[in-house]
Amino acid sequence: MSLLRASRIASVSLMLGLPVAIAALPQSQADLRVNGDRLNAHLAELAKSGATPEGGTHRVAYSDADRLGREYAMSLMRAAKLDVSVDAAGNIHGRRAGSASLAPIAIGSHIDSVPQGGRFDGQVGSMGAIEVAERLSETGQALRHPLEVILFSNEEGGTIGSHALASGLTEKQLGLTTNSGKTVRDGITFLGGDPSKLAQPLLKRGDLTAYLELHIEQGGILDAEHLNIGIVEGIVGINQWEVTIDGFANHAGTTPMDQRHDALLAASRYVEAVNRVVTSVPGRQVGTVGRIQAFPGAYNVIPGKVVTTLELRDLDAAKILALFAKIKIEVAAIEKATGTTFTFQSTNTIVPAPTTPAIRALIEASAKRLGFSTKVMPSGAGHDAQEVAPMAPVGMIFVPSRAGISHSPKEFSSTADITNGANVLLHVLLALDGR
Amino acid sequence: MSLLRASRIASVSLMLGLPVAIAALPQSQADLRVNGDRLNAHLAELAKSGATPEGGTHRVAYSDADRLGREYAMSLMRAAKLDVSVDAAGNIHGRRAGSASLAPIAIGSHIDSVPQGGRFDGQVGSMGAIEVAERLSETGQALRHPLEVILFSNEEGGTIGSHALASGLTEKQLGLTTNSGKTVRDGITFLGGDPSKLAQPLLKRGDLTAYLELHIEQGGILDAEHLNIGIVEGIVGINQWEVTIDGFANHAGTTPMDQRHDALLAASRYVEAVNRVVTSVPGRQVGTVGRIQAFPGAYNVIPGKVVTTLELRDLDAAKILALFAKIKIEVAAIEKATGTTFTFQSTNTIVPAPTTPAIRALIEASAKRLGFSTKVMPSGAGHDAQEVAPMAPVGMIFVPSRAGISHSPKEFSSTADITNGANVLLHVLLALDGR
Repeated sequence: MSLLRASRIASVSLMLGLPVAIAALPQSQADLRVNGDRLNAHLAELAKSGATPEGGTHRVAYSDADRLGREYAMSLMRAAKLDVSVDAAGNIHGRRAGSASLAPIAIGSHIDSVPQGGRFDGQVGSMGAIEVAERLSETGQALRHPLEVILFSNEEGGTIGSHALASGLTEKQLGLTTNSGKTVRDGITFLGGDPSKLAQPLLKRGDLTAYLELHIEQGGILDAEHLNIGIVEGIVGINQWEVTIDGFANHAGTTPMDQRHDALLAASRYVEAVNRVVTSVPGRQVGTVGRIQAFPGAYNVIPGKVVTTLELRDLDAAKILALFAKIKIEVAAIEKATGTTFTFQSTNTIVPAPTTPAIRALIEASAKRLGFSTKVMPSGAGHDAQEVAPMAPVGMIFVPSRAGISHSPKEFSSTADITNGANVLLHVLLALDGR
Repeated sequence: MSLLRASRIASVSLMLGLPVAIAALPQSQADLRVNGDRLNAHLAELAKSGATPEGGTHRVAYSDADRLGREYAMSLMRAAKLDVSVDAAGNIHGRRAGSASLAPIAIGSHIDSVPQGGRFDGQVGSMGAIEVAERLSETGQALRHPLEVILFSNEEGGTIGSHALASGLTEKQLGLTTNSGKTVRDGITFLGGDPSKLAQPLLKRGDLTAYLELHIEQGGILDAEHLNIGIVEGIVGINQWEVTIDGFANHAGTTPMDQRHDALLAASRYVEAVNRVVTSVPGRQVGTVGRIQAFPGAYNVIPGKVVTTLELRDLDAAKILALFAKIKIEVAAIEKATGTTFTFQSTNTIVPAPTTPAIRALIEASAKRLGFSTKVMPSGAGHDAQEVAPMAPVGMIFVPSRAGISHSPKEFSSTADITNGANVLLHVLLALDGR
């Protein structure tokens, strides 16, 4: 995009997702930067809630550590002059008024962690959003749009808080037992929400101008390529299947090699086939076989049955199905060669959630004006933004994760990378507000 | 072997295992046949002890069903004019006097079953041995050698009774918990044995002239090739290893395919390599991977660790080690390609037990004189004969198992095949006695 085009005001609706030109910010805004030291100090303080001996965080949703972390976050939001409330789903909202009568721009993430998780996943985007609000407040910046910082509840347990906000929760979802030991229903009550009000979405289309989320990459691409900022083109769709392979269990000593119907030999060829098919076409798709068990499962019995899994992820749902079709063709040949039968049972389907092209363009332009290198990339992990996507334009900003390690005490993003990400978040917000 | 040579008396020691010429039987013995109807009726009656709804047998060693079956077998032995006793290991002995002062010829098998097993494994050889003794008794055949029918205790739990007889039992072996819930020690006591007397072998070299065992094949070779009698060339050695594969667990959504250290992909290539190596050389060797588990074992996590197994069986211990060496070479390449590490921990080694060549020759000649087709073959399964082998010349006679199914209620051998096998047992015994 040329500087000439970038200097014109974008005139196309974000919702239509068409290419936009980017407005230059007024000088007072163009010079604005977050306080990186404060942001990283807040992250370090937050890490004390549910800190583990390994240097990580065990702050599963609805736990005491979760509530402690939320109280700390709410204290920071109040210090940033935000009007704090908790919605029926237990999501924390911190609101700042706008000068015009417009739908708010929301920014945020989550602060709950996986069991024995790290200090950055969700927390960088949450503390980053609060820092953006605080910086705007202390520098007296008036925005046209209201600003809403949202810290979603129970992201790690299946983006529950954001799903409730955008789609509501079913009785079945409310009854699920979580890593805290509590059901979703009891957990939401524990956080000050009201699960009886979640049959319908809390949000409707038009309620938000946009939702922006800063997050660690959780993959190793930015780190390996020494890039500053990832521009998320979308959150991948996920299809999962339970795979059952039926052969014939028999005596491992008396059954000749050529008379076996070995379900584990078939399973091994299947795992190899999944890898081969998924890597046979260009793109960022991934395919994983994560679980396997052979039955009866003894040294001296040829496995008669194997239960295993398949997970395929890509930004394009059609590509997932095309890969699955190719895997099925390979499986037919494996069945024939090994005398076994495969059954695929679909257990989970999450549709891909593309981000809004106009917001991607704003992220790219803002990052470049700040002097950062960028890469457009899918998010292989799920995020709250994918839940908000059906209801509002969304954008996601990634910062590097060292060695791509995530959901682990070893998860790490540098102070500089986190500060860079928060500055991009700030500048995208300002650009959106100025349109 | 020509008829001319077969008519000369064998003059070479069984223990030396050299080729022998086979004596023709006197006409009264040559015409002798077992009573097949009675033998099969005894098998059907025995099957009532521990009968399962599926038509199989649950008669694990040291259980009430085992004791019931043993009482029935002892009643048959007494009816066959055998002098019945139980040794310190709980093995049942039924003795018939010989006309000369010679070491007895032993024949027998076991009557305990695996959990949810069949009606033929062990039982065919046990009832077959008793039928041979009864037929000799009712036809007034005087043998030079004493005859000893032995029904070994707890074969399925690791050839315990025959191991005790030939090698003694350690304190550790006596302390093992069995499928009956009892320890070996308590189980032997339950059967009327005396576990305090088992530190030393009950048998020494020279105590037996030979041990002959009739058994079902438990494989599908005789059945598939429509053959009557298998001449067992030996009981295979078994080497078992626990195999641990270390990779790196990571997020299945955010970790690109080319940045993974997937322990399950490595395990799959290993299973395939085991199959390829074992089938790459001529012979009857078998290799099995029977157990596998991936950790952490979730749809959405790349397996960081896999624990699996390896079992190799062959008549030649050196061939087992050569196959293992080839597998290790393939594994080194898999480690390099997948960024994983394999560890092999030896968990069990059973040395091969070749049968006595002179007895193999007697089985072949006897079967041919009775008009049966034969095949020389290894036993892929373990048997009491392998325990006796270090102490006495041994021979094993196999009869067909339908479709090779064993250790299952579906295990089946026909009345005709069982009768054929018992007739071969009778004629080998007579031939051995006449030498």
